[in-house]
Amino acid sequence: MCHTIAVTEARDHLDHRVRRSWTPAGGQDAILPPHAARWLASKTGLVERSTPAAPDSALAVAESALPEVARKALEAAVGADHVLRSREDRLGRAGGLSYLDLLRHRGTGELTVPDAVVLPADPDEVQRVVEVCAEHGVGLVPFGGGTSVVGGVQALRGTKESVVVVDLCRLDRLVSVDPVSRLAVLQAGVLAPEAERLLAGHGLTLGHVPQSFERATIGGFAATRSSGQASAGYGRFEDMVEGVRLATPRGEWRLGVAPASAAGPDLRQLVVGSEGAFGVLSEVTVRVRRLPETRRYEGFVLDGWSRGADAVRELAQRRVLADVTRLSDPHETEMAFSLSGGWKTAVVRRYLRARGVLDPCLLVLGWEGEPGEVAARRRATLRALGSLRPISLGTAVGEKWRHGRFSGPRQRDALLDMGVCVETLETATYWSGVDTLRSAVRAALVDSLATPGRRPIVACHISHAYETGASLYFTVLTPRDLDDPIGQWARAKAAACAAISSNGPLGTISHHHAVGVDHAPYLPAEIGSLGVDVLAAVKRELDPEGVLNPGKLLGP
Amino acid sequence: MCHTIAVTEARDHLDHRVRRSWTPAGGQDAILPPHAARWLASKTGLVERSTPAAPDSALAVAESALPEVARKALEAAVGADHVLRSREDRLGRAGGLSYLDLLRHRGTGELTVPDAVVLPADPDEVQRVVEVCAEHGVGLVPFGGGTSVVGGVQALRGTKESVVVVDLCRLDRLVSVDPVSRLAVLQAGVLAPEAERLLAGHGLTLGHVPQSFERATIGGFAATRSSGQASAGYGRFEDMVEGVRLATPRGEWRLGVAPASAAGPDLRQLVVGSEGAFGVLSEVTVRVRRLPETRRYEGFVLDGWSRGADAVRELAQRRVLADVTRLSDPHETEMAFSLSGGWKTAVVRRYLRARGVLDPCLLVLGWEGEPGEVAARRRATLRALGSLRPISLGTAVGEKWRHGRFSGPRQRDALLDMGVCVETLETATYWSGVDTLRSAVRAALVDSLATPGRRPIVACHISHAYETGASLYFTVLTPRDLDDPIGQWARAKAAACAAISSNGPLGTISHHHAVGVDHAPYLPAEIGSLGVDVLAAVKRELDPEGVLNPGKLLGP
Repeated sequence: MCHTIAVTEARDHLDHRVRRSWTPAGGQDAILPPHAARWLASKTGLVERSTPAAPDSALAVAESALPEVARKALEAAVGADHVLRSREDRLGRAGGLSYLDLLRHRGTGELTVPDAVVLPADPDEVQRVVEVCAEHGVGLVPFGGGTSVVGGVQALRGTKESVVVVDLCRLDRLVSVDPVSRLAVLQAGVLAPEAERLLAGHGLTLGHVPQSFERATIGGFAATRSSGQASAGYGRFEDMVEGVRLATPRGEWRLGVAPASAAGPDLRQLVVGSEGAFGVLSEVTVRVRRLPETRRYEGFVLDGWSRGADAVRELAQRRVLADVTRLSDPHETEMAFSLSGGWKTAVVRRYLRARGVLDPCLLVLGWEGEPGEVAARRRATLRALGSLRPISLGTAVGEKWRHGRFSGPRQRDALLDMGVCVETLETATYWSGVDTLRSAVRAALVDSLATPGRRPIVACHISHAYETGASLYFTVLTPRDLDDPIGQWARAKAAACAAISSNGPLGTISHHHAVGVDHAPYLPAEIGSLGVDVLAAVKRELDPEGVLNPGKLLGP
Repeated sequence: MCHTIAVTEARDHLDHRVRRSWTPAGGQDAILPPHAARWLASKTGLVERSTPAAPDSALAVAESALPEVARKALEAAVGADHVLRSREDRLGRAGGLSYLDLLRHRGTGELTVPDAVVLPADPDEVQRVVEVCAEHGVGLVPFGGGTSVVGGVQALRGTKESVVVVDLCRLDRLVSVDPVSRLAVLQAGVLAPEAERLLAGHGLTLGHVPQSFERATIGGFAATRSSGQASAGYGRFEDMVEGVRLATPRGEWRLGVAPASAAGPDLRQLVVGSEGAFGVLSEVTVRVRRLPETRRYEGFVLDGWSRGADAVRELAQRRVLADVTRLSDPHETEMAFSLSGGWKTAVVRRYLRARGVLDPCLLVLGWEGEPGEVAARRRATLRALGSLRPISLGTAVGEKWRHGRFSGPRQRDALLDMGVCVETLETATYWSGVDTLRSAVRAALVDSLATPGRRPIVACHISHAYETGASLYFTVLTPRDLDDPIGQWARAKAAACAAISSNGPLGTISHHHAVGVDHAPYLPAEIGSLGVDVLAAVKRELDPEGVLNPGKLLGP
């Protein structure tokens, strides 16, 4: 690449990642305030208990089944120090952050523990590790931040007798920057906050901020077609990917010579979203932007879901979306008000009643850029909203949302400790189906979870809007069935997925969480049996031994 | 689809398309004015001759080799009236509009004439035709507008003994409109102007205006990853495709349930650009927009290519591109001035000299939308250009460009008649490589075409700009080597393609013309041997008999 600046950076954060252990993140915002717990109890019938994660020592972990010859070959590829087989190291990569993964770490259900953890240093070592696994018939699970919420990093063996996790944490470099073309080459294991720190040194940003931001990696974003909270402004991650370097059993595959092309199908879009089933991403070339000079986040309220959705649609179709555009339905708005509590929230509620708002829906809008540009774009957004009469709650509400926007996973740990079943799921559909699909999924969740004594909260928001449609993101809270937590979850998940994938209007089985294990049964309904056959054919071509991420994407 | 309006429309234009014969389009703008011919002669050394297309009667056309049993099966699928075998009907679908296709119709080189032309009425009939061809081992070339300039619709047999062209002209319906989601379902054979006429009835537009607009079809756009002249505003065609219906030998494949998804790789992007090698597109669901109320097209001049390219890059990276953004290099600007001639052009030249412009580069900018929006977006564009001091030539220059923007193919016929070798080719690369690649391709073309007495004109423009890079479109004019016109073309094409695909900075072998036959040899350099293997595996899966569009995309 011309005009490219080669970059080397210190790696002082690395030890922490290599010595990874599976622990809830904790922190101040992981603690649910008493009024919130009371509200939850009154709404759902929750009887609070203490159900903490099991100590690691209590979990069953089988001995490593990695054959000696494979271990030696892997050690030859990456060095003996970088093939970890301790109980703790293996347990630290036993699954991700799905509800089932969290239950397993609480002693419910069977943990999938890899037989070893391999830590390649660079793309060439990744390539050798992939080839060794193919040669020895060892399953291989690529592992970035381990934040998958759909089972995408479960250490499943598939048809193999052993499986290793390839943790990419040592691939943590910003390789190069091309400031003229606004391109950066990042190794797959770079954490999102670290990517932003490295890019900020060049006055650049990626702008990709999913809720998993604090722990997720560049490679994981690409592997799962991630979409950040500012996708309206910065695009989905697949829009940012300009090139990939993929380690496959058949050799390294590099793609990406131009921003757009008519040289056949866009194969980058076949690699992006392949979830480790076609190869291990080792480097990603991404489009970057100038670091914004300023930002303005603001809260608004619209009266009623339909009006709110119309507002977001209007913004999307006029192409004046704010960079962050996020509409909560009345249930989520009520939950936000109730969980934050305090006199300020009470004032807001009173103010809205006084303005005649019956069914408040919170709309968070955020703009980023140069001051003049932010002002101009904000004016355009608000002008388009005019006739829908949004009520501004000011920047404090917007900033509060921004500061708390990565806390979901930590709050989930706290809720699990309290005996709550807490899960999120998401879909997307075209605008004409948004209302109906929201109602259908909501009804499926409520019907499958409500029992005498348990009243589920089902909240929903639109966080990603397009000219032709939008995402729908559901948060579910209900007292956990402590006798059968897996069955409780499985019935609700199946009901929601059926609502999404078997009746009109159809939605996608995942807008940004990916397929993993949990959604694999529903993929055929979305892409057809021919689609599944095509993916399987591609996998056979690239991974003839079938060692790559067993059980994900295409299922068992 | 909810809220969908079913549509039926009169089909009074159809006879003309069914009775297609291969003739240059003609028309007023196909005639080169005398001063233009004089300028061309003085620049290139052209000695004008009359070398018109051969009359159809002079062309060699073999008897149809379609086996009787296959013919009967096709007739059973679409009706006997819709399997055409006359010499004229077959000759009318003998290739597209590539330079080599045009030479063949002038008696140079061997025409690829299909053994029959099949005219299915709807997607179900397309599906049956595909299955019949697979069953009987008959090659099948999908045919929309027949405007491919890379051999994409040549009736090659591949390994088969016969080949039919499946002309989609009867699939000419707007199937439905979803005004809420801004979606339209169009049959694959709808011509672009007809699509705009049908959509305008609903106050909507597609906004896709490639140079082939007048003759090209919706299915062709999707099959080739077309990009229109207003791509900066409306997106490339792949950005507009929300769903596809593809007839494959393995059955019909439908894709598209949401505007975005993380349910595995985006398989729509595997179908878009598959050039008929994976199946025949029968329907395409496209994103549409509100019909613009007004438009403003304006001409500007910048001094020097580098400054011009910097200007376009600045607009792209600040995301204030006009909907049409088109920068001509000094050679193309000189050509535009010289071909238009007249006293007005003379005044413009004098004015630019007086302003100290040494190396004028024409920049056409066009905005479309509501009046207020057009004004605001124009201000944002011009503000970003400020420091580069563009000189406005006013709206007359912009409008002149707009009115002539589809005339290229007709002018090419006129130039061919005069004994000129006229060809276009295009690529795209990242911004840091744009200057170097333009120089390299230009040098390759000049070096391979210049001979004593022949001085090629090589002109270039940027017509599609992205945050990370841009397209480069080259127009070549030189006296045709009447003794060896194919060799003359082949050497220049090979030199240009080598400049694009074998040295850094690399470009794509095609930004919007597609692969077809002409670019197939260069595809492996761009997507790697693994990329080719993956495409071949997908083709084997969907088209196990290998009947679909033989010789295209993946080569012989």
